[in-house]
Amino acid sequence: MNDTPSPLRIADDVLHILDQTRLPFAEHELRIDTAAQAAHAIATMQVRGAPLIGAIGAFGLALALREAADDAALDAARRMLAATRPTAVNLAWALDRVARAVQPLAPSARADAAWHEALAICDEDRAANRAIGEHTLTLIHALPATGRINLMTHCNAGWLATTGWGTALSGIYLARQAGLDLHVWVSETRPRNQGLLTSWELARAGVPHTVIADNAAGQLMREGKVDAVVIGADRIAANGDTANKVGSYLKALAARAHARPFWVAAPWSTIDLTCADGDAIPIEERSGDEVRVVRGAEGGITVLDDSRQVANPAFDVTPAALVSAIVTERGVIDTAAGRTPSSTELKVVSR
Amino acid sequence: MNDTPSPLRIADDVLHILDQTRLPFAEHELRIDTAAQAAHAIATMQVRGAPLIGAIGAFGLALALREAADDAALDAARRMLAATRPTAVNLAWALDRVARAVQPLAPSARADAAWHEALAICDEDRAANRAIGEHTLTLIHALPATGRINLMTHCNAGWLATTGWGTALSGIYLARQAGLDLHVWVSETRPRNQGLLTSWELARAGVPHTVIADNAAGQLMREGKVDAVVIGADRIAANGDTANKVGSYLKALAARAHARPFWVAAPWSTIDLTCADGDAIPIEERSGDEVRVVRGAEGGITVLDDSRQVANPAFDVTPAALVSAIVTERGVIDTAAGRTPSSTELKVVSR
Repeated sequence: MNDTPSPLRIADDVLHILDQTRLPFAEHELRIDTAAQAAHAIATMQVRGAPLIGAIGAFGLALALREAADDAALDAARRMLAATRPTAVNLAWALDRVARAVQPLAPSARADAAWHEALAICDEDRAANRAIGEHTLTLIHALPATGRINLMTHCNAGWLATTGWGTALSGIYLARQAGLDLHVWVSETRPRNQGLLTSWELARAGVPHTVIADNAAGQLMREGKVDAVVIGADRIAANGDTANKVGSYLKALAARAHARPFWVAAPWSTIDLTCADGDAIPIEERSGDEVRVVRGAEGGITVLDDSRQVANPAFDVTPAALVSAIVTERGVIDTAAGRTPSSTELKVVSR
Repeated sequence: MNDTPSPLRIADDVLHILDQTRLPFAEHELRIDTAAQAAHAIATMQVRGAPLIGAIGAFGLALALREAADDAALDAARRMLAATRPTAVNLAWALDRVARAVQPLAPSARADAAWHEALAICDEDRAANRAIGEHTLTLIHALPATGRINLMTHCNAGWLATTGWGTALSGIYLARQAGLDLHVWVSETRPRNQGLLTSWELARAGVPHTVIADNAAGQLMREGKVDAVVIGADRIAANGDTANKVGSYLKALAARAHARPFWVAAPWSTIDLTCADGDAIPIEERSGDEVRVVRGAEGGITVLDDSRQVANPAFDVTPAALVSAIVTERGVIDTAAGRTPSSTELKVVSR
């Protein structure tokens, strides 16, 4: 670990995580020393964000192997962890990577090797995110904006969503460090309000920003107050269709209607070449109770009774045609011309 | 008054209103016997919905005239009431109508005449809304949907938003009465959650419906689960650009992306021919505190501190090009061909 802010900390050979269900209201650390605790943390969104749940999954698998490390145990732990959240591909990717690294080894060597692999995933994640930030900064510099630059983001794709730096916010942090006059529209991101995590991060870093209801995105675009949208991703299909936190698609539609760029910032591991397009990406349906917690009478909180039917898809798919650029650590994939991202065809463009 | 549900009741020559800031959690009636109370009820959204605030404004002006009825007093009361909320044109329209009706009269006769005019506005509103419902039903019948029909609405444009029947919901009530197999997606409508008012109304009427976070609209469209969107309006410009509760525009963009009709249901009085287009419609900016009340740690409620910058436009403008039809009591204005609604050109189409 280095000294950039991170939602996880290694000490005493176990994991300590910031409980994101209590942020931004309380900074509370949880100790994770079993695979079951890791799975619980992912499923309940104590940790969230595609890159971060990949890392926590990897550590979880390592913790499982401390208890039992034969092939059957490895397989069972991997399945158990993978089942926690279906949409972000980074979780399956990290579990596969750890499993592949330890499978050739004797069971007694597997736990340490898995832990080592999880640490490597974290190091690579931070390096990738820093590179994503640099490529995003190039895009920001190339905006035709005069004076203050207004970016819009959705959900939280900052350092809390990763092991450090963040994806969508990485470039914003670098832009701030570079002295750019920048302001960020932060969409609150109902039903779980991850926008407040973004606001908390941006406030800590001194980045000017304004919180809005998700509904306000279209009107702000219409008023010319948004220069570009930058979001993270949970899974990017081979054709560039992008699954991200529900509500991203509506922002992409608004950005297109007002000819504003819509950037998806994500590590290469978020691209799932086995999904031909967005229709192949599983969309997680979460508990309706997340929507049932609402502002109640006279400003208090009220939980709607269970009889009220609620639907709660946690993600949506933005078609590639609405994505201006996919920013990975390898560079910027220009999807505007309908190109399909592939490792051999990666074209780095600055625009 | 007739026996359709209504958010206002006349008794003892004063007004009694359902306090909509406490719905759906408590049914509490407030007595309004001064113009100041009427203005407060409108500004704090104890009453809301374009047609309803028009009616309450009219009654408020009548109440003012009971205290003082000379020209100066009439003018001052009218200004005070008009200033409560800027976007919905129905308020200015109703105040103008009452003022015009009483101005030729002696001051001593004005209060009674104004009260009479306010009652007439209510009667006409209910009749208009019933007619809007019938025209909307024709549109619903003409949908290519097979089996259950899935409509989506935003905010509350039901009987609570009017003096009876509602605008967007009027056709849904008539469809239910006609035995159609209908289901409604109800967007919660942050920051004030008027979707819960819609859910409360629909539940009372036995209309199957599902509450969703506003962010989910795009994904539901993408999954083919929406046959049409129907919303109300606060002001419709001469070219068909429509101001309605913030978030409407995003739904219009999604409907267009998936070739689903987007209907605006509103009485003729919502059309403001003095606004050439949506740019001329004033958009109310409400207190950031409405956004600051959020789900907090562990499901509780938290109010964000004032230092957090918040923007809260209460409305947005949907360009006419995205509106499939404007449904008024006079019939359906087909805006799909880019027609400008005008009283002499009204073309009734059923599609």
